[in-house]
Amino acid sequence: VSSQLKTMELSVDLDRLMSRHHALAKIGATGRGGVCRPALGPEDTAARRLLLDWARARSFSCAIDPIGNLFVRRNGGEPGWPPVSTGSHLDTQIPGGNYDGIYGVIAGLEVLETLEDHDISTRRPIELVVWNNEEGARFSPTTMGSSVYSGATSIEAALESCDREGISVRKALAESLSKLGNLDQHAFGAPCHAYIEAHIEQGPVLEAEGLSIGVVTGIQGISQFQTTITGEAAHAGTTPRRRRRDALLAAMSQISGLAKLAEDPGDKLRFTIGKLTVLPGTPNTVPSEVAFTIDLRHPQREALDAFRNSIERICGTETLSCKSKVNEFLNSPPIDFDARVRSVIRDAAIGRGASFMELASGATHDAKYMAKLCPTSMIFIPCLSGISHNEAEMAAPSDMECGANVLLDAIKVLADETASPIAQVPA
Amino acid sequence: VSSQLKTMELSVDLDRLMSRHHALAKIGATGRGGVCRPALGPEDTAARRLLLDWARARSFSCAIDPIGNLFVRRNGGEPGWPPVSTGSHLDTQIPGGNYDGIYGVIAGLEVLETLEDHDISTRRPIELVVWNNEEGARFSPTTMGSSVYSGATSIEAALESCDREGISVRKALAESLSKLGNLDQHAFGAPCHAYIEAHIEQGPVLEAEGLSIGVVTGIQGISQFQTTITGEAAHAGTTPRRRRRDALLAAMSQISGLAKLAEDPGDKLRFTIGKLTVLPGTPNTVPSEVAFTIDLRHPQREALDAFRNSIERICGTETLSCKSKVNEFLNSPPIDFDARVRSVIRDAAIGRGASFMELASGATHDAKYMAKLCPTSMIFIPCLSGISHNEAEMAAPSDMECGANVLLDAIKVLADETASPIAQVPA
Repeated sequence: VSSQLKTMELSVDLDRLMSRHHALAKIGATGRGGVCRPALGPEDTAARRLLLDWARARSFSCAIDPIGNLFVRRNGGEPGWPPVSTGSHLDTQIPGGNYDGIYGVIAGLEVLETLEDHDISTRRPIELVVWNNEEGARFSPTTMGSSVYSGATSIEAALESCDREGISVRKALAESLSKLGNLDQHAFGAPCHAYIEAHIEQGPVLEAEGLSIGVVTGIQGISQFQTTITGEAAHAGTTPRRRRRDALLAAMSQISGLAKLAEDPGDKLRFTIGKLTVLPGTPNTVPSEVAFTIDLRHPQREALDAFRNSIERICGTETLSCKSKVNEFLNSPPIDFDARVRSVIRDAAIGRGASFMELASGATHDAKYMAKLCPTSMIFIPCLSGISHNEAEMAAPSDMECGANVLLDAIKVLADETASPIAQVPA
Repeated sequence: VSSQLKTMELSVDLDRLMSRHHALAKIGATGRGGVCRPALGPEDTAARRLLLDWARARSFSCAIDPIGNLFVRRNGGEPGWPPVSTGSHLDTQIPGGNYDGIYGVIAGLEVLETLEDHDISTRRPIELVVWNNEEGARFSPTTMGSSVYSGATSIEAALESCDREGISVRKALAESLSKLGNLDQHAFGAPCHAYIEAHIEQGPVLEAEGLSIGVVTGIQGISQFQTTITGEAAHAGTTPRRRRRDALLAAMSQISGLAKLAEDPGDKLRFTIGKLTVLPGTPNTVPSEVAFTIDLRHPQREALDAFRNSIERICGTETLSCKSKVNEFLNSPPIDFDARVRSVIRDAAIGRGASFMELASGATHDAKYMAKLCPTSMIFIPCLSGISHNEAEMAAPSDMECGANVLLDAIKVLADETASPIAQVPA
């Protein structure tokens, strides 16, 4: 694919991009190809420090907000105008791969530096954001930094969140800040002209379709349920079928009904039973309790809600004399990204001769919260076999380069705009 | 039921039976209604010692064999003739109830003592056996004592079997023996005229039918399989259905096929999926591996084999692109108990005016191995809600009395027989 790309005067520096990728991959490296950088731990702090070193070497201004989001800014001709923002995160799963989050940060820095290399002035400032604790692997909730930044989560609640050892975000953040040098203060929810986040797809679609760029239409809605079925433990040898209340057979019946409902010729609905436990769990005992999760996702609210509303009926019918309880513990409606920002990205891909498609994000990203504040979209690049949250995570340098160039071109267009596009109405 | 029973001159002493039941219930009592007496531990040894004390007080001869089975003998008019035997075990699950095994031992002792009380002589000796390590909760395998006694398991293998702390049967047995006083030596597989074991049903059938006595037709065959399905872990949000290899949905499909095959209008086939594990087991990951057990039981060999032979086909077909592996790790064919011994028990129940039915045992018992050596059957009494292997295990004193009287009458008939009934051919 990369051989067909148009060579343009203004392009990111692939060597620099990759050298930074490798430099970050060393911080918290597990020795098995992956990396372990829990949010605000020593490794995450070291990665943030390295990023600030790179930014300061180019005299970009560096700021932090009260929840620990970092902002690296290259000023524009109109320094008072709302910036165009880009970014992602440097914290990882425990352990995680070298691309999730990291790619969006170094691609964003590459945009700032490429403009700097060529001494190109944009009207608007361009801001690179490193969101704090996106993964949620150390502190709950996930996407903490962007959630607090957008006002969806309170700063107090976030600061009180503790890791497994009882260390709070407040304490870990203070410790981390002491290593980062002087930083300006950045306000929450500051006016922003547009936000674009570059990220690996974390799914198999672009690779399977042989495409370089995904123009992200939004983040699909997600709903998660916990179902508990209570039957009665009984001896597998002595209890006739008619006297059993077998929680596992009831669960099978429910899941079979749900799976049938989940049949979707367009293959947009994501239906997953990921966790299922059986008690007491011995070969010669009829199961007394089965608990399972239902994970549902769909880019369209109506389709998601239609399924959500059927769950209780199906689980309530297929009980085989057991008791069934269903509880929705997560319901996050779909987010539609801004049509104009998407068209700017599409044009940039076309301009680079990069093959692309539009697709919804299956995973959650900080862009979800930025979409509440300003016109937002994302750029996806393919990743090997769709593998993510895994040390084996991998993206091709040619795709990383292509994605960074599309990001560069799109941001440059947006950063030269005078009038604000109509802000997206928050969902 | 008990009020309708005929009063006969020769009957067991319910007060003594219950006082012994309570005395044994104190040894290893958990304080939650149950008891914990792992085989050959201090509590099991104390229970055996107490039994020997009762036996010695009546001058019954006491012996032990090399695997630790205890034999209490009341002699007959023809001391050289093969005895009629009865018995069960005193070891328990960890923890277990106060009836499983214990009832058969104290009911058997009651038979010997009732005959002694009334100075009734039988032609044949009557032997009460306390089988060692029936539960298998401390040492593998279960029914160790009767298995070694019958020649099915080698004495050497059994003596080398170790508990979780690395203590061997050899060592635990020597320790236990040192507390039991002088005992005669008893040979393995000694000639036996007939064997009857009294036991709680451990299932709900007698209680549900409102009956006092189960005449046990045999021990159903049991076959256990381990099935492992390997798919591919994938992100629940980003992976379209057509690119998934979902091990759980494949498992559901297999279990659904198996459950359909297990439909049995006569409700004789026991089909249980008791253990099922899902990996990696997080709500937002498509399961990569599911392992489950299949427990199949049926009193008829042909019916059991027909199902056994279909399992591989069903599990091999319903794979949904996953890999499926099936392994049978236990196959124990059904045992048919002796028709004549069953008819003697039936006649005894009729003689007592006790309501009864014939039924197959769902659980394994030491009688399974005695059936290889001599004409054998069992007497079941109801237990509360079919609960067993549980501290809540319970049987009614009236049923305990009735079962012991039926045992008494049946043993008395067999012990006065001159000619041996035709020995059952081992399966």
